[in-house]
Amino acid sequence: MTDAFSFAIHARDGAARTGTFVTPHGGVQTPAFMPVGTLATVKSLDPDDLRTAGASMILANAYHLHLRPGDGLIRDLGGLHAFMHWDGPILTDSGGFQVFSLETLRTIGEDGVEFQSHVDGSRRTFTPESVMEIETNLGADVIMQFDHVIPGQSDAARARDASERSLRWLSRCQSALDAIVRRDTEGRSPQALFPIVQGGIHPELRREAARAIRSMGDWVGYGIGGLSVGEAKPDMYGMLEALDPELPADRPRYLMGVGFPEDLIEGVRRGVDLFDCVAPTRMGRNGTAFTSLGRLNIKRAEHRADPAPLDPDCSCTTCRRFSRAYLRHLYISDEILGLRLLSLHNVHFLIDLMARARSHIAAGSFDAWAREALARLATSLAPHAART
Amino acid sequence: MTDAFSFAIHARDGAARTGTFVTPHGGVQTPAFMPVGTLATVKSLDPDDLRTAGASMILANAYHLHLRPGDGLIRDLGGLHAFMHWDGPILTDSGGFQVFSLETLRTIGEDGVEFQSHVDGSRRTFTPESVMEIETNLGADVIMQFDHVIPGQSDAARARDASERSLRWLSRCQSALDAIVRRDTEGRSPQALFPIVQGGIHPELRREAARAIRSMGDWVGYGIGGLSVGEAKPDMYGMLEALDPELPADRPRYLMGVGFPEDLIEGVRRGVDLFDCVAPTRMGRNGTAFTSLGRLNIKRAEHRADPAPLDPDCSCTTCRRFSRAYLRHLYISDEILGLRLLSLHNVHFLIDLMARARSHIAAGSFDAWAREALARLATSLAPHAART
Repeated sequence: MTDAFSFAIHARDGAARTGTFVTPHGGVQTPAFMPVGTLATVKSLDPDDLRTAGASMILANAYHLHLRPGDGLIRDLGGLHAFMHWDGPILTDSGGFQVFSLETLRTIGEDGVEFQSHVDGSRRTFTPESVMEIETNLGADVIMQFDHVIPGQSDAARARDASERSLRWLSRCQSALDAIVRRDTEGRSPQALFPIVQGGIHPELRREAARAIRSMGDWVGYGIGGLSVGEAKPDMYGMLEALDPELPADRPRYLMGVGFPEDLIEGVRRGVDLFDCVAPTRMGRNGTAFTSLGRLNIKRAEHRADPAPLDPDCSCTTCRRFSRAYLRHLYISDEILGLRLLSLHNVHFLIDLMARARSHIAAGSFDAWAREALARLATSLAPHAART
Repeated sequence: MTDAFSFAIHARDGAARTGTFVTPHGGVQTPAFMPVGTLATVKSLDPDDLRTAGASMILANAYHLHLRPGDGLIRDLGGLHAFMHWDGPILTDSGGFQVFSLETLRTIGEDGVEFQSHVDGSRRTFTPESVMEIETNLGADVIMQFDHVIPGQSDAARARDASERSLRWLSRCQSALDAIVRRDTEGRSPQALFPIVQGGIHPELRREAARAIRSMGDWVGYGIGGLSVGEAKPDMYGMLEALDPELPADRPRYLMGVGFPEDLIEGVRRGVDLFDCVAPTRMGRNGTAFTSLGRLNIKRAEHRADPAPLDPDCSCTTCRRFSRAYLRHLYISDEILGLRLLSLHNVHFLIDLMARARSHIAAGSFDAWAREALARLATSLAPHAART
């Protein structure tokens, strides 16, 4: 690790661990959920909302910010931290997931990916080198390698091809980053490049990728990519179990794009330290709230006159202040405040879930707590659940 | 006045006055701008935002809340203060302005107005008596009478007809409110009924209305309605000048639906104490910011890389934290946070303008300040103004 980053594990309980990941912009108590600010804003929320919700590290997206407003502009304005007024740790996703999601708009080659901007239709090319330029312009604390992402149920041949290309691209990312750091030494905050373990749902490919990545360097942390992209849940959990002994025990592990409350608990149980997902804000804007008793659809008529908070077990600023009746009124009336209050609650819910996981890991009671929490969350599967 | 309300004037400067209007939910330093929370939410803002912006008294609308979610529901949930989590003073507009705005959807009679709900098309009737039921259900501190609102350039005959009907309706509002208070004594917070002076742009009608209203009782405060509805600005100012000597000097005067920064200054100069308008939030959502140098359109390309705040002379949480470049990025990218940050700035701007007016009235320097502020604001009329 460079001096600017460190990871100290304070306690373990089975494969679950709790620790502190230190970055140039502060520490992150792990396991942690990182809210996603795709376009340098966690949708509908203010940086102050994020602090109030207990967020420590947040995400932004290289693909989206490159297209709009442009990573060069953000660099000129002092980088992402200054631009979006977030002085805590930030991680940028490389855009791999986004450009590979543009099924019909992109051409993949060994050099990189040519794609069409979803904003203005212009042709663009991402290479490991160009992505490193973008991510250093943005200036996040942790920057993800440019990787080749494939659908969750791809066969072994396709998974191997993408995984091996991702390894070659990792090497190019590393060289490119080294060159940029040598070129621009002035006023730079240190950035840690995280490799991404690919390999689809094939345990042997996952293990191979992890070993190859480790052979390339002593990384500050490790991304686990290509999961939660259409594969079955047991496959995702199986990959985490296959990787647990392969990844260095003393480095943070980031399960990319995951997830829902139950996924977070299952991930922590398998040794994951960091998570991110757009679900809490996207679902909030769609009128759905996470609760300790499962999901709640605020649009339902049954909430019309309900004075209860979204979740009686929640201490967020939405639940401390507003009734389901008021939130439903806002949502039904298309009031912007409703989108924000539900997003705020959902983000707080996942952050708080990880805070609870940390305290149970420290107390050695993680497994019992996880079982109980998962059972309560499972009531969300019943259509009329999530009520007190 | 009832014991629950009082108004003390601390200083005068010409016709301008500064004072404290005390209500059951706290005091209001006047002159003051009241943000409008039509549907029990000041659009895009949180009650905490309003406190941060310095708001003391806010508005909500009887017409809109009667239709959605229903004033009975709000009563059952503890009234507007509890429902929207605002423990400061609230004023409700009676719905007169709204139902008379439904040009083709309403039938006016001496008893009241029959209209079609803009939400579900149902037929509804507002009478002075039904509006008092609605406003007592909502439970605001100040409730406005149900009045007959006419277009700003109506002739004297039409203005007299509407004004005289408004006087008869005031009498019925007063009787209805008295009956409700006698009927429901339990747990009620005192409410003050404000009459509304009508009379179009006809000074003699305005004076007649003011005298008739005063002959009917010693009111806690006085609304001035039917202005800022299409008449010329000098006509509006003329009506305020005609009314200044006719309204009791020791009672707050509320100029309804006004307005823009320059209107507030001109109103204060003519003895007005309270203002409200949807302009700051509506313009914020449309990408326009009030600034001390005139209006600023955040969508303009010239703000693309501008590190300056919206208004260098502003201390709001938007201006203290974010650049025009970031706000433009949010607005161009359809990010909800952009609508909130601009609304927050605009609301703060008008609240702060009134705070400055208060201090200049107290210092005896109101007139010089008003002239200077109006000159700076007038740069907004130039298309390329509002830049530092």
